[in-house]
Amino acid sequence: MHQPSAVPHVVIVGGGFAGLWAARALAKSAVRVTLIDRRNHHVFQPLLYQVATAGLSAPDIAAPLRHILRGQRNLEVRLGNVREVRAVERRLLLADGSEIAYDSLMLATGATHAYFGNDAWAEHAPGLKILEDGLIIRRRLLMAFERAELATDPAARDAWLTFVVVGGGPTGVELAGTLAEIARHTLKQEFRHIDPSHARVLLVEAGPRVLAAFPESLSEKARKQLEHLGAQVMTGGRVETIDENGVLVNGQRIASRTVLWAAGVAASPLARSLGVELDRAGRVPVGPDLSVAGHPEIFVAGDLAAVSQDGKPVPGVAPAAKQMGAHVARVIKARLAGQKAPDFRYRHMGSLATIGRMAAVVDLGPVRLSGLLAWWFWLFIHIFFLIGFRNRVTVLMNWAWSYWTYQRHARIIFTPPEDKHEIG
Amino acid sequence: MHQPSAVPHVVIVGGGFAGLWAARALAKSAVRVTLIDRRNHHVFQPLLYQVATAGLSAPDIAAPLRHILRGQRNLEVRLGNVREVRAVERRLLLADGSEIAYDSLMLATGATHAYFGNDAWAEHAPGLKILEDGLIIRRRLLMAFERAELATDPAARDAWLTFVVVGGGPTGVELAGTLAEIARHTLKQEFRHIDPSHARVLLVEAGPRVLAAFPESLSEKARKQLEHLGAQVMTGGRVETIDENGVLVNGQRIASRTVLWAAGVAASPLARSLGVELDRAGRVPVGPDLSVAGHPEIFVAGDLAAVSQDGKPVPGVAPAAKQMGAHVARVIKARLAGQKAPDFRYRHMGSLATIGRMAAVVDLGPVRLSGLLAWWFWLFIHIFFLIGFRNRVTVLMNWAWSYWTYQRHARIIFTPPEDKHEIG
Repeated sequence: MHQPSAVPHVVIVGGGFAGLWAARALAKSAVRVTLIDRRNHHVFQPLLYQVATAGLSAPDIAAPLRHILRGQRNLEVRLGNVREVRAVERRLLLADGSEIAYDSLMLATGATHAYFGNDAWAEHAPGLKILEDGLIIRRRLLMAFERAELATDPAARDAWLTFVVVGGGPTGVELAGTLAEIARHTLKQEFRHIDPSHARVLLVEAGPRVLAAFPESLSEKARKQLEHLGAQVMTGGRVETIDENGVLVNGQRIASRTVLWAAGVAASPLARSLGVELDRAGRVPVGPDLSVAGHPEIFVAGDLAAVSQDGKPVPGVAPAAKQMGAHVARVIKARLAGQKAPDFRYRHMGSLATIGRMAAVVDLGPVRLSGLLAWWFWLFIHIFFLIGFRNRVTVLMNWAWSYWTYQRHARIIFTPPEDKHEIG
Repeated sequence: MHQPSAVPHVVIVGGGFAGLWAARALAKSAVRVTLIDRRNHHVFQPLLYQVATAGLSAPDIAAPLRHILRGQRNLEVRLGNVREVRAVERRLLLADGSEIAYDSLMLATGATHAYFGNDAWAEHAPGLKILEDGLIIRRRLLMAFERAELATDPAARDAWLTFVVVGGGPTGVELAGTLAEIARHTLKQEFRHIDPSHARVLLVEAGPRVLAAFPESLSEKARKQLEHLGAQVMTGGRVETIDENGVLVNGQRIASRTVLWAAGVAASPLARSLGVELDRAGRVPVGPDLSVAGHPEIFVAGDLAAVSQDGKPVPGVAPAAKQMGAHVARVIKARLAGQKAPDFRYRHMGSLATIGRMAAVVDLGPVRLSGLLAWWFWLFIHIFFLIGFRNRVTVLMNWAWSYWTYQRHARIIFTPPEDKHEIG
């Protein structure tokens, strides 16, 4: 049994990339670390779209936090839902009423989808941030084809066969490209009353181009690859309403029973209890040591942190979260040694986005790739970074199998026990 | 689009072993086949306990019915929930109000768990029949260790670390053996406030021995193997009540927060609409051609059928279901040809039960195996029969990995979206 001790207590909230990298970097330090998360697992978010599109099982891209960190003797993992930071008392309040005292705190609870004030859209257009989102989207996609097969009215059938993805960032592009592939190839021969390849996949982006963070030439290549895979791309498309029957875009009604949301994120609400002014997306502005103004003992990292560098915001991507997590550990260790760590500098390693089968774009600054080569590069990088040896091999094997057969092994529709809306 | 035609319409309800084997056997016949199931997938039930105990992902042991049967041009798969058989009109009534007419009907909707009139036990002691059951049990098992880690009261902690499995048949033995392995090996090093290897796993069987369908010598070997793995076996244990705090067995209270039910099954309620007298377990008595008395056009197969042979009931196991399914197809084809198929004969191929790591019992009549050799035999047979090439390879790889590392890759706790009982 652990007893409180004189060793400083570092509490990390969130077991994503930032939290995990900070925890690992503190392995050999004279601190006691508690990692708190609401879930028992770390998720490899870059492959979450594969769970949503039935290419991978959920356990393929997740690993129990306890297992990842089991060997780290100065650390304990705690399943818990942190509701409030009581910064003055240096305590966290949990949803079950218990409290945890800290000496140093790192908040890394990430971001969730945001509907820009249209919270009613959430029900009709699920977003993709956590593993459960992936399973919900998978169920909706697969059920849409089943509903279309059963539909007797042609208009109803077409609405079930129309898929709208809102948001042309990396997640939207991945979902639209993979959906087009499923409709055209995976479901071939399987239905008798519909032709899944006639499904319409529409990617709606409000800005002038998809993948706005990439150079214009790669955005254009991404659009062409999407269209080649069978998806339609609408840029300058302003979504006005979303309901269960479809979307209204630029005044035009699109009948669709399956709308996916990849348009906006907002930081986790836990930041609000810090009592500092947040940015427009709800993120916490931090200093060059990633600590909060007035609270040098509170750090924020990952998607929850608003960090500017050379006048530009550091992007909300996995490498940035890992670098921030590792940096917080460095600052804590330096302080223990009575030293000062250098300021945080984000090193941009390049941008990657996958689009679908053999299609991706890669921007490494001087080197720009697209198409098959970019796709291989993307695949190699993602499998290399996937946590856990077993997962890597299994994922690679699933991928190879999908690649040759066009099949997706996780095409299982779960009916949640609470779901009373079983098909009749 | 399919149009009704003069070709006889065979409707199969249920995509388990019986339904699938019947559907396949009718591939080249001059019939139109409709396979209806509430789920989109076939489940390889013999490995379901591995999903419940986090050894395999749900998609590892399931495959979409549409995909399995995609090449069979005289067949369509329909997702639907059959509520009633209107035998006089030769129609099925579905939950959504639609109707399906048939010329021949095969019911193969299987069995579900039964609590012998104590339906209130269902909430506290989940059973294991469908994929969703496996995910519910997995969540409960993993959460029990998390709750124990957070418990401050020793009695509460012990109750979270006590697991009771009710029923000493193959499923109960598999669950108890694997649970003991998880507690002793898989979770080693991962907790800081509990020692998972101190968990108590108790298998309660009402009869005088576990695996009653096996020879007495193998029952005794199974008990020894269970005890060697760390589970306790209580025979002659009559369960009197089950509630959220534990079970009352033979007047003795056992405090346990995790009780699993593997004690009883009852046939699917669809059979009641047939209007024939059912047996005590709700199964439909059928003649030697597997048809229902008074309705030669209605067949029943698999766990839903009560078939006697040489004065003994045919067991509710996968090989029996496959043989019955294939036999129904044979009878239908013979009738089309104006002939009579021979009577159904169940060929017993032997009995297998796995207990846990390197432990199993095999009864092949003259040959009886137990321990490591039986386990290899069991593994080979099960992977050989697993449907779908990809699944087979992945499952074998997962198994090899689990075997060498004691790890279980699917240790992911999902929080169903409707679940408001998140941990605090």
